[in-house]
Amino acid sequence: MEVRSTLGALATPCLVLDADRMERNVARLKTRLRGLGVPLRPHLKTAKSVEVARRVMESPSGPATVSTLKEAAQFFDAGVRDILYAVGIAPAKLQQVVDLRAQGADLTVVLDTVAQAQAVAQASRRAGARIPALIEIDCDGHRSGVLPTDRERLVAIGRALEDGAQLRGVMTHAGASYGARGAQALRECAEIERRAVVDAAAILRAAGLPCPVVSVGSTPTAHNATDLTGVTEVRAGVFMFFDLVMAGVGVCDVDDIALSVLATVIGHQREKDWILIDAGWMAMSQDRGTRKQAVDQGYGIVCDLSGVPYPDLIVVDANQEHGIVAMRTGSGAGLPDLAIGERVRILPNHACATGAQHCAYHVVRGSSDTVEARWPRFGGWQ
Amino acid sequence: MEVRSTLGALATPCLVLDADRMERNVARLKTRLRGLGVPLRPHLKTAKSVEVARRVMESPSGPATVSTLKEAAQFFDAGVRDILYAVGIAPAKLQQVVDLRAQGADLTVVLDTVAQAQAVAQASRRAGARIPALIEIDCDGHRSGVLPTDRERLVAIGRALEDGAQLRGVMTHAGASYGARGAQALRECAEIERRAVVDAAAILRAAGLPCPVVSVGSTPTAHNATDLTGVTEVRAGVFMFFDLVMAGVGVCDVDDIALSVLATVIGHQREKDWILIDAGWMAMSQDRGTRKQAVDQGYGIVCDLSGVPYPDLIVVDANQEHGIVAMRTGSGAGLPDLAIGERVRILPNHACATGAQHCAYHVVRGSSDTVEARWPRFGGWQ
Repeated sequence: MEVRSTLGALATPCLVLDADRMERNVARLKTRLRGLGVPLRPHLKTAKSVEVARRVMESPSGPATVSTLKEAAQFFDAGVRDILYAVGIAPAKLQQVVDLRAQGADLTVVLDTVAQAQAVAQASRRAGARIPALIEIDCDGHRSGVLPTDRERLVAIGRALEDGAQLRGVMTHAGASYGARGAQALRECAEIERRAVVDAAAILRAAGLPCPVVSVGSTPTAHNATDLTGVTEVRAGVFMFFDLVMAGVGVCDVDDIALSVLATVIGHQREKDWILIDAGWMAMSQDRGTRKQAVDQGYGIVCDLSGVPYPDLIVVDANQEHGIVAMRTGSGAGLPDLAIGERVRILPNHACATGAQHCAYHVVRGSSDTVEARWPRFGGWQ
Repeated sequence: MEVRSTLGALATPCLVLDADRMERNVARLKTRLRGLGVPLRPHLKTAKSVEVARRVMESPSGPATVSTLKEAAQFFDAGVRDILYAVGIAPAKLQQVVDLRAQGADLTVVLDTVAQAQAVAQASRRAGARIPALIEIDCDGHRSGVLPTDRERLVAIGRALEDGAQLRGVMTHAGASYGARGAQALRECAEIERRAVVDAAAILRAAGLPCPVVSVGSTPTAHNATDLTGVTEVRAGVFMFFDLVMAGVGVCDVDDIALSVLATVIGHQREKDWILIDAGWMAMSQDRGTRKQAVDQGYGIVCDLSGVPYPDLIVVDANQEHGIVAMRTGSGAGLPDLAIGERVRILPNHACATGAQHCAYHVVRGSSDTVEARWPRFGGWQ
């Protein structure tokens, strides 16, 4: 899929991936986790691309985490075998799980209720093959999961699973870490995350249940954990590209962000010091994750074609196909003179959300404007 | 594309379209505009579907409005001829405009600067065929466009266009009407919108320039204008499906909303009265357009499988593939008992944004759970 072009020749808006930055980001987390002695199970929901996945996983067969069964099927077709589907299983999806496993996928599901465990056990008995499952643990009240102190529910789920299916372990996601600030707070999130699954695993083992997998994961905690004793794997997704939310949390710098949206200037409102571009929320997504952070980046930071930010220039508002570019409130810098037809690159708030609005990555390296490849990207659920 | 199924048999999350409601919505606006003597040029960015477009346009060949050249090309392939590309033209996109016109599309572009007009004139001269253009007018400070009082800029753009291209008229979009409340305020928005283009047209005509097209458009103003004297066409998009933002503005009722997302219950946090579903922001979009309205609908209103809302039940928060369903704050109603595996339908904040997250409509009628068709939907720009 080598389609050499230049950024100046691409139709806009489109998604640009700086492979140098991505490779640096991936190496950084892998090196860090190697130091902690725990393998990485990257969350491929951020990528939704076989080409990206191959550059992020430890091996062509995985391990990997996915957020939909479509991701599981697409990555399985590309040779990935060890796959964790990390969203609570709906009983109606179990037939597809059984089918993928019958084809050779080592696909694990996630659940946090006895009802789901019974459904997984029943589907396993019907298929004559044990479906492995992790029990989701709620480490910080963020979303789903069993409290790590809820011995009764943990053991009941484990026993329901073992009646035909396979209890493979526990997993959690420190979603609250996205709201933490500073290394100390992030280290505490990581320790809370670790302790939750280690404690839950101890409860299961004390009840005579197996718990080989003890899985944690979020990009902020993965980059701040100092001790992962008892943890067998770390999941993270956004680390591969990073984004403005992660920069706001303090996990990366703005110039680590590998993803941007290429856009063209299509107008000016000179009385208001506005520049209009052809990337609106359809191209950027409506993610406004920096709104509650110390620095609100609007719909993204505006960079020149080589990826260098213009001082204080952001996308302050967006309609479906229009972005309004202006100086950050209170800035002393001057509005750059961007003519009709000129091109800019916008760094996104949230790599997963912005990526999802596009069907391909246009791959560049550093400040070069050569597009060395076009990597397809998929979306949807079916 | 008849794929009969039931809502209970579809994989979730997916997009459901109630064709009865859509047809009622379309008939309502057409009847209204017929009474005002002005034709409808529907904005197909809301639909991005040939099947929907055919049920919304006045004829199979149009007229139609689009927000991307991909929409123009897709609808042209399906037989649409009279197409307005209603986003300010980037010079690099003119070759595709020329190509589509050479194939038989009567494609009109939009612009608001002399630089764009010169680029359109130059592309026209090079192609040996006049590209028609509308001058965008800024009626309410919302986004792009020339002020209707800026005689000098209007005439300069018109003259630059006529030097090779074709000045076809003026257009505006009352974007500020989305923030208006009550029939009186909406009628005023509609009159401001009308007057802006009528005034601009008068300036152009007084300068000896042609201005056959005088185009206005937004769903709130289309539904509230009482006088469209001097206007030659009305554009609107979201009217075909409606959504919670439009219900909040007062342009429709909640039970006019034709679009919903089908989801499955995948968990509970009983201590918090939360129900988890498999529709997160990837399925709903991150549009939170009701956040600033009198009633914040979260990420959407939760309905049963037949499309009837549960009292005060909304999606209060969302992650990528998880929705958190709970009672609206302060509600006296009780949380419904939705078991693991049960299905719900979520009414969206913004039909354009939610639709864009999906690749097909599953078509139902009223409270029937029979899926009578699957209509494909496209996205992207290239």
